[in-house]
Amino acid sequence: MKHLEEKVISSQQIFTGRFLKIERDQVQAPDGKIYTREYILHPGAAMIIPLLPNGNVVMVHQYRHAVKQVFLEFPAGKRDANEVTLDTAKRELKEETGYEAKDWKFLTTIHPVIGYSNEHIDLYLAQDTNLSQRQLDHGEFIEVVEVPPQDLMRYVREGKVTDVKTQIGSFWLDKFLRGEWN
Amino acid sequence: MKHLEEKVISSQQIFTGRFLKIERDQVQAPDGKIYTREYILHPGAAMIIPLLPNGNVVMVHQYRHAVKQVFLEFPAGKRDANEVTLDTAKRELKEETGYEAKDWKFLTTIHPVIGYSNEHIDLYLAQDTNLSQRQLDHGEFIEVVEVPPQDLMRYVREGKVTDVKTQIGSFWLDKFLRGEWN
Repeated sequence: MKHLEEKVISSQQIFTGRFLKIERDQVQAPDGKIYTREYILHPGAAMIIPLLPNGNVVMVHQYRHAVKQVFLEFPAGKRDANEVTLDTAKRELKEETGYEAKDWKFLTTIHPVIGYSNEHIDLYLAQDTNLSQRQLDHGEFIEVVEVPPQDLMRYVREGKVTDVKTQIGSFWLDKFLRGEWN
Repeated sequence: MKHLEEKVISSQQIFTGRFLKIERDQVQAPDGKIYTREYILHPGAAMIIPLLPNGNVVMVHQYRHAVKQVFLEFPAGKRDANEVTLDTAKRELKEETGYEAKDWKFLTTIHPVIGYSNEHIDLYLAQDTNLSQRQLDHGEFIEVVEVPPQDLMRYVREGKVTDVKTQIGSFWLDKFLRGEWN
């Protein structure tokens, strides 16, 4: 795939907001010409599928201002500096839902915004879960809900789970619970 | 879900790059306090799952500079002003792959970046396809490939299809071809 790659000519952080950072690169494309590429700099994230002993999954309702909707999501959050994503997953699960888990399984890495962000999200399945204490971040308003996996697949099909990380987690959970992928 | 919503106090476009635009809003959260939210303004997009008469799907290899990798993707592209996404889908399928299709089916809408972009992507299944003429945009370097659906699900499982829209399209295609969703 080398013949499709672009060579970086120059690279500059052109915007620093309160939350978002933008990089602008000049690249040399396969045709030899110079093009401009802009993208968000993101530290990476982790998402957790917390499977309870009763067979339900723990999820959250959260209002997302960018889309101006309340979403049904799996717990997730941004990686802190120097943090491995398994630690991010453990931290975010506890902060957002109050749950801890003894059995952690890495599922896959996904790239949500390949057109304009370097974000990746590592997905984990958390089992052997038990309820501890929530510790929400300042300015986070999150409602915890339990969902049976069969309802979740119906929500996906009906367009009620449109957040990509959550929809992908739902499909991986479906494959896992059917015994097709494990 | 009203009790989780945030009320917009003020709204301002604070960055306009060559490609990216950022909005910064002041919002009043459920606790009554004022918070800042920043997000990318995006016109929306369409993705196409082009199913050939021979049972394969048409996909593209494309280098994505934000992640600095070549991705295996379903054809997709941004909506033009005043364009409905079905027209975006027809246009992008022809531009990127040279294929046209007579049978179009809307599958679902997804939100790839609910934390910091208002982007949505409408997914379409295109059947009764026939090869016409490619018309790549300036600065696009795209290689067209045919993939059997069973290989695609293996690639997803093995972490070789990490682009979220493409992974979600692969799962929907799997459900469609199994006759579970149609």
